[in-house]
Amino acid sequence: MENKLTSSTEGQPIRCKAAVSRKPGEALVIEEIIVAPPKPSEVRIRIVCTSLCYVDNTFWKMQDPPTFFPRILGHEAVGVVESIGKEVTEVAKGDVVIPIFLPDCNECIDCKSTKSNHCSNFPFEVFPWMLRDGTSRFTDLNGEIIYHFMSISSFSEYTVVDIANVTKIDPEIPPNRACLLTCGVAAGISAAWRRAGVEPGSTVAIFGLGSIGLAVVEGARLCGATKIVGVDVNPEKFEIGKKFGLTDFVNPRECANKPVRQVIIEITGGGADYCFECVGTESLVHEAYASCRKGWGKTIVQGYDNKPGARLSLSSSEVLHEGKSLVGAIFGGLKPKSHMPILLKRYMDKELQLDEFVSHEVEFQDINRAFDLFKNGQCLQCVIWMD
Amino acid sequence: MENKLTSSTEGQPIRCKAAVSRKPGEALVIEEIIVAPPKPSEVRIRIVCTSLCYVDNTFWKMQDPPTFFPRILGHEAVGVVESIGKEVTEVAKGDVVIPIFLPDCNECIDCKSTKSNHCSNFPFEVFPWMLRDGTSRFTDLNGEIIYHFMSISSFSEYTVVDIANVTKIDPEIPPNRACLLTCGVAAGISAAWRRAGVEPGSTVAIFGLGSIGLAVVEGARLCGATKIVGVDVNPEKFEIGKKFGLTDFVNPRECANKPVRQVIIEITGGGADYCFECVGTESLVHEAYASCRKGWGKTIVQGYDNKPGARLSLSSSEVLHEGKSLVGAIFGGLKPKSHMPILLKRYMDKELQLDEFVSHEVEFQDINRAFDLFKNGQCLQCVIWMD
Repeated sequence: MENKLTSSTEGQPIRCKAAVSRKPGEALVIEEIIVAPPKPSEVRIRIVCTSLCYVDNTFWKMQDPPTFFPRILGHEAVGVVESIGKEVTEVAKGDVVIPIFLPDCNECIDCKSTKSNHCSNFPFEVFPWMLRDGTSRFTDLNGEIIYHFMSISSFSEYTVVDIANVTKIDPEIPPNRACLLTCGVAAGISAAWRRAGVEPGSTVAIFGLGSIGLAVVEGARLCGATKIVGVDVNPEKFEIGKKFGLTDFVNPRECANKPVRQVIIEITGGGADYCFECVGTESLVHEAYASCRKGWGKTIVQGYDNKPGARLSLSSSEVLHEGKSLVGAIFGGLKPKSHMPILLKRYMDKELQLDEFVSHEVEFQDINRAFDLFKNGQCLQCVIWMD
Repeated sequence: MENKLTSSTEGQPIRCKAAVSRKPGEALVIEEIIVAPPKPSEVRIRIVCTSLCYVDNTFWKMQDPPTFFPRILGHEAVGVVESIGKEVTEVAKGDVVIPIFLPDCNECIDCKSTKSNHCSNFPFEVFPWMLRDGTSRFTDLNGEIIYHFMSISSFSEYTVVDIANVTKIDPEIPPNRACLLTCGVAAGISAAWRRAGVEPGSTVAIFGLGSIGLAVVEGARLCGATKIVGVDVNPEKFEIGKKFGLTDFVNPRECANKPVRQVIIEITGGGADYCFECVGTESLVHEAYASCRKGWGKTIVQGYDNKPGARLSLSSSEVLHEGKSLVGAIFGGLKPKSHMPILLKRYMDKELQLDEFVSHEVEFQDINRAFDLFKNGQCLQCVIWMD
């Protein structure tokens, strides 16, 4: 990846193009903006490519708080460090990096622990500004503030990101693959690898085969699961899932009146060792819980039910008497700075499949096409190239 | 323990005394009954001592199904094998044994696994009869069937138990201590030891300091937890709990309007690594879940809310975003035949405290006093001696 930068921009505002979300659900506007230099503990990054995630889409359409406009969306990306603020020692100008929405400060009890990815210095929230000082680095040409998104805002040629959100990577890794590992795909793989701890020979059931669900399939295959059952109402997902290691498929609409749990219990000989809910529907969490094996089955919640007041409900008797676990995990339990290099190495070693997740690639000027493809259910992941 | 038996009773019905529960909530009637010889895979046991558990009390008072009368309650006990049925090779006449309500067949995938204590050959249910053939071994002197309870029925001088429910123990162990390990006390210790896997240096919060909760305290101390916080509305429980290793105490009625979760988060510096709900109240499970640490906290459900339709409810957001686990475990995840000898050895090695759990001991003829003590909240565990 060529570093086109000269030192002339360092410490100066940069004027560049960004795709600004000005009104809920309306096409992003590609316009010139001003990106301020990084403050202490911040890094200014030239984005090489970015990809569209369902979270961008959710916040793009969102009418009510916590929404903010105008805003620069985008949080899956790869870039090159243009300049660094004071106190930044972890990366240097010219380094290839991936910004990741989940902070990893390297200092707190959680970031130092092997068990947690919940940074206690910087608890994750969908802030509209920079992590430490609550201000924005973006203004439009009229001087109006443009809000940040998920600490990243990658739908811009340049962005400013806190060092807690930056991981340096091997520059040999293709950027249109590395960027996939910054949100949903990494979360799915890690849900199987980190949070569930799927073992060789185990049985897995995945509810919902969107890109997170398919990434769980890939993660389960990497961990050596021998039976990987997908559950989806779209029958085409079986063929797609097979590319990642899916061995069995259940279409709830074609179960001959059997409950899905019963079909999975039959396929797995007693219930899946690990069930993953990747949709975000309360009833599906319950179905997943009922489909996992008594005695040791684990249900991993990956989907998020954003209906107001949505609650998961289990009977006291089934929790106590069935010996199962219900676990949740943001980003699949992945710790950005320690686990990401492992995943990227496994991709370079041809163990981890990422190529199959990219169904579309577009130029930055066509970014609104990515939203259309997403809306029409036509793409798994769409990569957006900045130049 | 002296073996008083002669071979003359082998293969013959035995006439002996039992405390029969004839009507819900009414005093047990000590009467003579007939105990049939063991059928294949069964063992007839002379009970040496037994103890009263809250489950006996629950079924004793129960008016509606699944209740059965007349019935011989009791399921915490120690005894001596009087005779064995065909196909029994694991124990012999004269062996000291503990009958345990949870089957452990030694043969199925679950019993062979180290992860599960849910025997798949004989899934646990509160049967009113013998495990394999659905008949009773008890009759009264009028020839009327008397029902079994939890596969044990230890409120009788003699009982018949399936070999899947029998574990041989070291005869040197005092019977009035070993009998405590057959239900609640073992469940509590094991909830910390087996199901949670409490590590040295960890923080633990226990909601409800009845004998199960106090046993969790003991289990947490054995595992090396350094902060063990008890939550109970009875302030006397702090002093009792200290005997087992309790370091801190929260009385929800004296929290100065702070939620219990906040007090525990303050005491533990961020939330307990492990929370145990030992009462059986939905709202308390939720409080326990909220009191455990983001990122890795685990909530272990030990209490059983037997209100019809009682459900545990968690918000989708807290499950997904907090990285916590909710786990249940019958008998604390303890596998009777493999784990019980370890606990008994730790008692004999003076590592495990059991003496402090016994607050009362009565003669068999006074068995109804044990129920009175229980009703009045006056006892932790009451041992009932058969002779």
